Amino acid sequence: MCSDLRRLLGSEHVHEPPHDSPYNRDASRRRGVEGRADAVVLPASAEEVAAVLRWCYDNDVPIVARGGGTGLTGGAVATEGGVVCSLERLREVRALEPALWRLEVEAGVSTRHVQRLARENGLMFAPDPGAAEQSQIGGNAATNAGGPHALKYGVTGSWVAGLETALAPGELVQLGGWARKDVAGYDLKSLLVGSEGTLGIITAVRLGLLPAPETAIALVVFLRTRAEGCEAMLDVLAAGVQPSALDFADGETLQMVAGSYPGSVPPEAGFALLAEVDGTRAEAHAQRAALVEVLSDAAIAIEEPAEPPALWRWRDGFNGVVTGVRGGKVSEDVVFPVERLAEGLERFDEIGARHGLRSCAWGHGGEGNVHATVLVDPASEPELDAAEAAAEELFALTVSLGGSITGEHGVGWLKRGRLASQWDTRALELHELIKAAFDPKGLLNPGKKLAR
Amino acid sequence: MCSDLRRLLGSEHVHEPPHDSPYNRDASRRRGVEGRADAVVLPASAEEVAAVLRWCYDNDVPIVARGGGTGLTGGAVATEGGVVCSLERLREVRALEPALWRLEVEAGVSTRHVQRLARENGLMFAPDPGAAEQSQIGGNAATNAGGPHALKYGVTGSWVAGLETALAPGELVQLGGWARKDVAGYDLKSLLVGSEGTLGIITAVRLGLLPAPETAIALVVFLRTRAEGCEAMLDVLAAGVQPSALDFADGETLQMVAGSYPGSVPPEAGFALLAEVDGTRAEAHAQRAALVEVLSDAAIAIEEPAEPPALWRWRDGFNGVVTGVRGGKVSEDVVFPVERLAEGLERFDEIGARHGLRSCAWGHGGEGNVHATVLVDPASEPELDAAEAAAEELFALTVSLGGSITGEHGVGWLKRGRLASQWDTRALELHELIKAAFDPKGLLNPGKKLAR
Repeated sequence: MCSDLRRLLGSEHVHEPPHDSPYNRDASRRRGVEGRADAVVLPASAEEVAAVLRWCYDNDVPIVARGGGTGLTGGAVATEGGVVCSLERLREVRALEPALWRLEVEAGVSTRHVQRLARENGLMFAPDPGAAEQSQIGGNAATNAGGPHALKYGVTGSWVAGLETALAPGELVQLGGWARKDVAGYDLKSLLVGSEGTLGIITAVRLGLLPAPETAIALVVFLRTRAEGCEAMLDVLAAGVQPSALDFADGETLQMVAGSYPGSVPPEAGFALLAEVDGTRAEAHAQRAALVEVLSDAAIAIEEPAEPPALWRWRDGFNGVVTGVRGGKVSEDVVFPVERLAEGLERFDEIGARHGLRSCAWGHGGEGNVHATVLVDPASEPELDAAEAAAEELFALTVSLGGSITGEHGVGWLKRGRLASQWDTRALELHELIKAAFDPKGLLNPGKKLAR
Repeated sequence: MCSDLRRLLGSEHVHEPPHDSPYNRDASRRRGVEGRADAVVLPASAEEVAAVLRWCYDNDVPIVARGGGTGLTGGAVATEGGVVCSLERLREVRALEPALWRLEVEAGVSTRHVQRLARENGLMFAPDPGAAEQSQIGGNAATNAGGPHALKYGVTGSWVAGLETALAPGELVQLGGWARKDVAGYDLKSLLVGSEGTLGIITAVRLGLLPAPETAIALVVFLRTRAEGCEAMLDVLAAGVQPSALDFADGETLQMVAGSYPGSVPPEAGFALLAEVDGTRAEAHAQRAALVEVLSDAAIAIEEPAEPPALWRWRDGFNGVVTGVRGGKVSEDVVFPVERLAEGLERFDEIGARHGLRSCAWGHGGEGNVHATVLVDPASEPELDAAEAAAEELFALTVSLGGSITGEHGVGWLKRGRLASQWDTRALELHELIKAAFDPKGLLNPGKKLAR
């Protein structure tokens, strides 16, 4: 295998990874997320990606696309062996046209670099998933990554005007160009977005940008209880205020992350909202005033960090801090309809308690998107068993409340087969028929994003 | 056929339409767009739609979903016979939850009614395709309809949180609920949006709404030439101004619609921009000032209509006025990348002249979306032939400039097979495989939205 691939890519760009290679892991550190890649390849261009895919298709070898490796569901790990195709060398900025609000970059460009290119030109790339330094724009598109600012600005897919993809059996296909509207064919681009490498491999992304808002103002709002916090978020919506972000941390989470908060957390706080408003200076201040008016009755304290980015850096660290408390965690990314958020969080708490686990939750509250987490000792099999049993109940709860088993982290390997509890049978069948149309040999990221 | 269908729906809801029935036409009045429906059925509920689809599937009879009949490409016309399934009786507002910014309505509710329900509750349903009184929200979703305000707010699909659809062989399937983020399965919802009744029949739509902007300010900007007008639109983008709408009318169009303009068109005007800015009062005024600053050098006159809706009513009338000039027109909805708009319009003019036709163009300039039109005597076969030959050249031009053969009107029957000039072969094949997955018998709106 490797000798063929070395002929295609040059010998220094094909490795046989050791079992403990980072290419056999992702950021989930979850039990069972262990790759056994036969080869890791680092193509230099979209054409080389297509050539690798063609070789895999000719030789019946699985191929797993991999971005920054920051995924949390095992999506980029070769659980069934084969080739891991890392996009890290596809780092060209193909076009940056600030006057037309657009940017075309190859898949391996980091999300932070995309954000920076936009900002340096007076524009904004709005999606802000965690780990933006490491994560790559191709992976963001392949998982339809979100982040706090998706509340106002939408997820990654909202900003993808077009994609270049390597499709089976091994050719580069353009899906969508720079035409700003297009209904000439079925929306294949939206199928690829969020498909987690199971339909094709995204090699370049054409992104729409927006003029950067003049001002952003962040607020941290501390409340006594979860019930009050969830009610407060609904009050914000009901008041017709549109924050650019409205995240939350529950009391357990707050305890753990208080130490890194750039300020002091009131001791009686049992819930916190992390909000941001933006726009022109006048608009942002008007929205800030409206938010404060809605929230001031219930709040213990409302703080305004001088620098919003510092707040989001703190927020971005939750995952690591919570993991550090006991060395491990099992965190599930679920969505409740926003009006069921309080109920969902309360019942998740009960689930954790019933399994003897310490639970906590944070996430994108305005969208009902919760990172529901239990702390574990990663060396304790019984605890891991309990955590998985709790997750099982959480998924059933989510579906029963009309939500989704994943909002932004994807299905990957860890949630394979779970769509069956959420979708009608005919829709599951169509999910599978679409997979078969794009990947008749089943070699693109096998075992991932399975419907049942 | 009709007796079976009458048993399903009641005899008063199944008709055998005469050849000249409005159900055998659409708003295009184009040659060849003539249905020969064997039956028109008017189901009362989503369940009845599914039952009709099941009957058609059991009996190998084509079924054509139909909304308000305002389409311009023959999409809702039974060109191959069979059953026309009109959604006009599905008019229930299933849920209106202003505090959660959402609305669920059945497919037959008019777009104007959706807009009104939102507005009466302090919210906005942003998409504003033409003919909103007649057109229905199900048809808007099935064609992914646009309109002037799509520039800032996106097309219909951007606001569709979920769909209820009747899928072959005859069952109701929910695609997407109220979870605001969801990456649990492939994006089937986006496939149905814009599928023009060829993948399934949309029976209800779950819509996201936005808080209504406090103020909207419209501006009409008259310029001397097309070149100056197109340059002005690029200047607006380059200045980082974000109008909610930026439509245009070229000189020929202006001449025809001047009579209905609520004001007076300067005689030397050869191009007009119809712009709107919105937001808080302060923001809208700031954006207005920015627009005027960008445009004042090139403009002959900048007028501010007291009531923006009056401007958009005028705009909505272009189609009818232009049709009236010679009794007929052939109008094609194409998209150029916005920086190629001037070139596209100029070359379209040359195409018309070469075929001895009077041409004109208007559309959504900020998106490069052009309704490129030639006037014809509808009784003159040679003129219709010339118009079709001109359209042929226009499509080739569009594709050569990196645009799309349709931005918002869809493929329908008139543009069937044309995707082949725009997409890679593998993408065409996937378009067809998706059709086969959803509709293995090929009975859902046969002959429409064909890739080749």
